Amino acid sequence: MQLALIGVGLIGGSAAWAMKKAGVFDSVAACDLRVENVRKAAQLGIVDRVAESIEDVLSEADAVMVAVPVLAMDSVFTEVGKYVNERALITDVGSCRQSVIAAAKKGLGTKFENYAPVHPIAGGEMPGIEYADSELFVGAKAISTPEFGMNERSVRFWENAWKAVGSNIVRMSPQEHDTVFAEVSHVPHILSFVMVDSLLYGDDFDRRLSFAGAGFRDFSRIAASSSRMWSDICIANKEAILKSLKGFEADLAQVTRSIENGDLDTLERLFDKASAVRRRLFVRKPLH
Amino acid sequence: MQLALIGVGLIGGSAAWAMKKAGVFDSVAACDLRVENVRKAAQLGIVDRVAESIEDVLSEADAVMVAVPVLAMDSVFTEVGKYVNERALITDVGSCRQSVIAAAKKGLGTKFENYAPVHPIAGGEMPGIEYADSELFVGAKAISTPEFGMNERSVRFWENAWKAVGSNIVRMSPQEHDTVFAEVSHVPHILSFVMVDSLLYGDDFDRRLSFAGAGFRDFSRIAASSSRMWSDICIANKEAILKSLKGFEADLAQVTRSIENGDLDTLERLFDKASAVRRRLFVRKPLH
Repeated sequence: MQLALIGVGLIGGSAAWAMKKAGVFDSVAACDLRVENVRKAAQLGIVDRVAESIEDVLSEADAVMVAVPVLAMDSVFTEVGKYVNERALITDVGSCRQSVIAAAKKGLGTKFENYAPVHPIAGGEMPGIEYADSELFVGAKAISTPEFGMNERSVRFWENAWKAVGSNIVRMSPQEHDTVFAEVSHVPHILSFVMVDSLLYGDDFDRRLSFAGAGFRDFSRIAASSSRMWSDICIANKEAILKSLKGFEADLAQVTRSIENGDLDTLERLFDKASAVRRRLFVRKPLH
Repeated sequence: MQLALIGVGLIGGSAAWAMKKAGVFDSVAACDLRVENVRKAAQLGIVDRVAESIEDVLSEADAVMVAVPVLAMDSVFTEVGKYVNERALITDVGSCRQSVIAAAKKGLGTKFENYAPVHPIAGGEMPGIEYADSELFVGAKAISTPEFGMNERSVRFWENAWKAVGSNIVRMSPQEHDTVFAEVSHVPHILSFVMVDSLLYGDDFDRRLSFAGAGFRDFSRIAASSSRMWSDICIANKEAILKSLKGFEADLAQVTRSIENGDLDTLERLFDKASAVRRRLFVRKPLH
């Protein structure tokens, strides 16, 4: 089977690599706005054919994976709809579901029935094929969001492809997906970007930042992520993100008031609630 | 030389352990509001004498390290001032400087001249002696904030003690310390606590949080920290924290507006600025 990969970045590159190693695909053709990304992937043995365009990459494709920033999905799906054969199995790996499924429906036309999206919950802050890792998805969750109009053949195929690379499939509705990932992924990324940005005033910010310790390093890791990918997500999942940000801002306003008023009890209670949940979520055993 | 350790948690326990191993001290006496912490430290070989009270712990002390939450420093320094001998070298490891130095000045009286504070920029989200690590400070910065009235003997002694456990001493004023650490440590901790707290609504938050990936895990790591330690810091470094929070909130308001207006360019520009700085600060080499 041949995979056509559209968009050769960290996720697309790692997914194609892992699926080829797992025997899901025999060969990979790929294209990207930056042809050097495809050439690099070819050097690494991920890509077998460097394609010039979406039309070119689809010429012998049995399956298609779209791995571009979410706002670019619209035009990519329109091209895919035009050139892909009637039987090819189509997926994407975007971090938003409702807007991307709408783009697929519009762009793919009757071929929408061959489409089934899966969002792998894995990644890394450093974008690009230079950081691709065929083990990236082992033990990670992968969210399948089948909807009316997608056929069983495609949903099964892509869920099995992700299982083959070590991921655990969880099914949910596109609506629930977008709410949950606004909260546990999109808003944390925004806060991390904003926190770093808010320190970049004055001409001494390099000196101030040089005192950052491990707490800052981890908190800000995701602020190294792709600005294009994340600004797209902000717009594509706008509604759920704004709702979650509103909740965060109300909570922060309460904390700010408590600091102003010297209200130690409220602060300690709120921090305590958060730390209890965080410790339960990611358990770290005592050293002694 | 005998060290009297007041407050046997992650930082105090790790520091006493490291300094004993480095030969700075021959023996350690310790006390804590929870005597089980001192007993645990004795089991680990960190503490040689379990003291009953501050008066008791100081009876043969050549040096004193105060490692309690910053708002408790006031009453601890008053006790230390009462019972400590005229020559003992005194320090603390608090995360705020101006308020703690004021507490030391008030509590220690004429013995303030023997006091010199150093703030080690190391730690871990899991508080308590169970996580103590004698290698914790290797390669870390340690901020010395000498001020008028502290004598050379004490400043040199404590700076050398921290060098002996592998830390790099940086001197700055208490004012600069509090501004810088509000920005790169205190506010990130607050945001991490608040972000986790803001998700704890409804009765399905455990399910929603179960979809958190590595980004959330790292971003929220510091939200597992001690609620007592961090609520104290919020009050003790109130002014600098409120100023830094104000900058963050203004930045976040701009991002929220940009999302509402679909202003992709502003989002991408802001994220890009943050990610460029974050990537420069903690370089991660490409895998390929």
